[in-house]
This record gives sequence, C-alpha cells and structure tokens, in this order.
Amino acid sequence: MQKVSIIKVGGAVLEDPASLHDFLCAFAKVEGKKVLVHGGGRTATSVAAQLGVETHMVGGRRVTDSAMLDIVTMVYGGLVNKRVVVQLQAMGVNALGLTGADGDIIRSHKRPVGEVDYGFVGDVEKADGELLAALLDKVVPVVAPLTHDGNGLLLNTNADTMAQTAATALAPRFDVTLVYCFEKPGVLTDADNDDSVIPILTPSLYAQYKADGTVSGGMLPKLDNAFAALAAGVNRVVITSFRDMRGGTTITTD
Amino acid sequence: MQKVSIIKVGGAVLEDPASLHDFLCAFAKVEGKKVLVHGGGRTATSVAAQLGVETHMVGGRRVTDSAMLDIVTMVYGGLVNKRVVVQLQAMGVNALGLTGADGDIIRSHKRPVGEVDYGFVGDVEKADGELLAALLDKVVPVVAPLTHDGNGLLLNTNADTMAQTAATALAPRFDVTLVYCFEKPGVLTDADNDDSVIPILTPSLYAQYKADGTVSGGMLPKLDNAFAALAAGVNRVVITSFRDMRGGTTITTD
Repeated sequence: MQKVSIIKVGGAVLEDPASLHDFLCAFAKVEGKKVLVHGGGRTATSVAAQLGVETHMVGGRRVTDSAMLDIVTMVYGGLVNKRVVVQLQAMGVNALGLTGADGDIIRSHKRPVGEVDYGFVGDVEKADGELLAALLDKVVPVVAPLTHDGNGLLLNTNADTMAQTAATALAPRFDVTLVYCFEKPGVLTDADNDDSVIPILTPSLYAQYKADGTVSGGMLPKLDNAFAALAAGVNRVVITSFRDMRGGTTITTD
Repeated sequence: MQKVSIIKVGGAVLEDPASLHDFLCAFAKVEGKKVLVHGGGRTATSVAAQLGVETHMVGGRRVTDSAMLDIVTMVYGGLVNKRVVVQLQAMGVNALGLTGADGDIIRSHKRPVGEVDYGFVGDVEKADGELLAALLDKVVPVVAPLTHDGNGLLLNTNADTMAQTAATALAPRFDVTLVYCFEKPGVLTDADNDDSVIPILTPSLYAQYKADGTVSGGMLPKLDNAFAALAAGVNRVVITSFRDMRGGTTITTD
C-alpha cells in the first residue's frame, strides 16, 4: 500500500518566522505523499484586538461569534495558510491551501450549545478520502482549521480533530502515518529531560505507563486520541519535534 | 471538445449580499465545467482603515506595501474567497477556493518599479492548464486575485488578467468561453439604454464601431483584451450581467 503522512502543526509554530522556517524545511524533506494540517494561533487574537473585537477563551478554546468568525477566516484561511503555501512553493513543494469547506473536504456541524456557547465552532463529521486521494496525486494539501456544515456556515474547527479525520478517511486507500508536531521531541518519561523520549508506545505499554504515573496530565487526552485513530484504521501515530520530525514517539498496535 | 466557462466577477458584487446571492445563483446554473475568478474590492480598504493602514490608489489600482499585502491576503484569499465557497457548497456546487499560489496554478513576477512603485503587485506570466484541467474533473475552482512568483512572494494581482490567462491555458484542452460579468447587460451602443446591447461583436464589426464612435472610452481596453484572448485560443468572450449571465455581448472571430 502506498504511504501517506498527515502532519499536524500548531498555529504558534507558524507565527514565529524562525520556527516556521525550521518546520517547513523538515516538512519539505518528508518523502512520499503528505498533507499538512495547521492550527490557528494567536495572530487571530492580535488582529481581533486591532479591529476592536474582544477575544473570549473558555478552557483554552476560542469562543467564535460572527465577528471572530470573519477574523479567523481571514487569518487562518488567508494569512497563515497562504504564507505556508508560498514558502513551500519556494522550496519546490507543490502546496495547495484548503479549508475543510473547499471541495467539501471536511464536513462538520455547529457545536450544540451546552454549558458554553462556543458560537461558530464545528464538530467534525467526516472527510472526503476520495477527493483527498485525488488531490494527493497532484499536490500537497495544506489545510487550515476551518470547516463548513454544507448549509452555508463556515466553522472554526480544531486542527487535531481535522488531521485525525483526514487520516482516518485515507486509511482504506493508504498506509497512513499521522504525525503530531510539538516543541518536545516526543512523549517523555521525564518532562524535564528531552532525552527521555518513549520510542514506541503500544496499548499494553500505555496501560502500564498510565497505571504507574509515567504518563499523566495533558498528554493523556492526546494519547487517547492517538489510540482512537489507530482503532479507526490509521497505521501509526507519531509524536515528534516540529524542528526535525526525526525520532519521536511512535504509537502503534501491540 | 468539452466546454469550460471561465467566469470573472468584480469584488464589489461580492461585497453586497443581495448582489452576491443573485450572482451565485446564476453561476450555479451555468452548465458544464466552470471556474470562478473573483476580484478584490473595497472590504480590503475598510479592513485596512480599521487596522490603521492607509490605502493608496494610483489610476484605480491599489498600491500594495507589506502591510497592505497581508490585508489583501486576509480579505481576498480568506474572507471573500471562503464566503463564496461555502455559499456555492450550500447550492450544491463543489467549489474549491484557490489563489494563483495554490498548486502553482498562476505564476507572476513582481511588477518592475516604473513611474509608480505598486509594491507587491504581480504581472501574470502563466497558468498551469494541466492542473486546472485535473481539478475541473473533480471540483469548481474559485480563484482569488493573488498570485506568487515561485520564490516565496505572494502578489496582489488583477483578476481580469488572471481569468484571461487561465482561459488561455485551458484553450488547448477545451472549448473555452471567457465571461466577464458587469452591472450592465453587455456592450451597449447607447450607454443610457440597457436595451441597446450589441449581441455579437467580431473584429470587423469592432473596427467599424470604433471608427464611427459607437464604442469608446473605458470599454475599448476591455474589448482589446477580449480580442487578444481570442487570438490566444479562447473560443469566445462574453460580456454580460452578473445578475443572470443571459444574453450579453459575445465577442468572436469573423
């Protein structure tokens, strides 16, 4: 089966020119078919402030009213996405920028109002693996964290979930590696020691590390998601440094 | 030969919700393969003002310094382009938004500094007809007025020229109609009478109308461009109303 890598990077990396350059050089070197899914980041907050729109975050997530939706559309779908595309093009990578709305690649629905009304935020439903596969024959898709509901609503969307859904949709057609790029070189047994990367994490090892407290805190939901992606057909998930994408932690079945 | 329509509409139409709705309904009804190329428009000017960036126009063209380039990237490539995409998606048209940089679809170079320094403005060099044709098999491209130079520079670009270059690049593969949408129902013999549309304009008729003053002023450069497109292989150029795209003036060979 042909290989494809779905590589997710946070918005913060893309806002620092030196980090962006390091990451894009590493991305350009990844062999074979690949997709880049990027996060949003803080530029939206500063543009919002300049436009007199207040930013509200609940539990680290952006509340997206109508004015904020226009801003994230401009910043994520325009500024951040096209900056990445032109830089990759200059590196010889035939990048093509997309949101989930483009080609109906990733469909979502507006998150129901619960204790919090997040506004125009999308919960991902599905990705179109067939169209993504067709695009992968010609270009390197660069996906911004926006989706749509098919009824005319654009929705601010979590990039991790979009990457996972795209990876799952490609799984019937490809040998899929889902890569999450971070500041750290992988999942560490000692948060203060970058040399303590866990190279391979299987469900049984993970159960053991959870039980003995080796892995805890904010890493748990990320790893739960990684194992969910494996269960949905993704061949492996890698958690690695955005600077070189070497080594890191490979999450795989037993 | 299979037919394809390249339809260009100005940015002003896209800024007025009622006009946008009329135009998109008309666009959705166009049969066969099609590409939408949209202009920029005044939203960039109002966003710039809100961000404290002054707008300078010379001869109706926007001077694009670095701050203005970020703004047109956000507004044309993000806000305007994605609004069109989600609305077309809701109408059942599988729209996919692009700039010229995406997939290296339309390449340009930074305009040399002459009497005026227009800044980050691109003069179009070429379009990739092969990739456009491959995309047309799957989606309806919606193109924003931005291109790139292949060396990492995004450039603000005239949408008319982009439409003409895309049409020309598709001409070896398709029977191409290039459609320019306006407020008026076509080229008029009497500017004050919307019933005076010239239905067919050939080179010999055009020479006659130029000589006797029937056609004059701002319409002349547009028509010269239309005949240049025919000379470059486009099968016909239509100048028509953005509201229904019916009738209008068809510019064709003798």
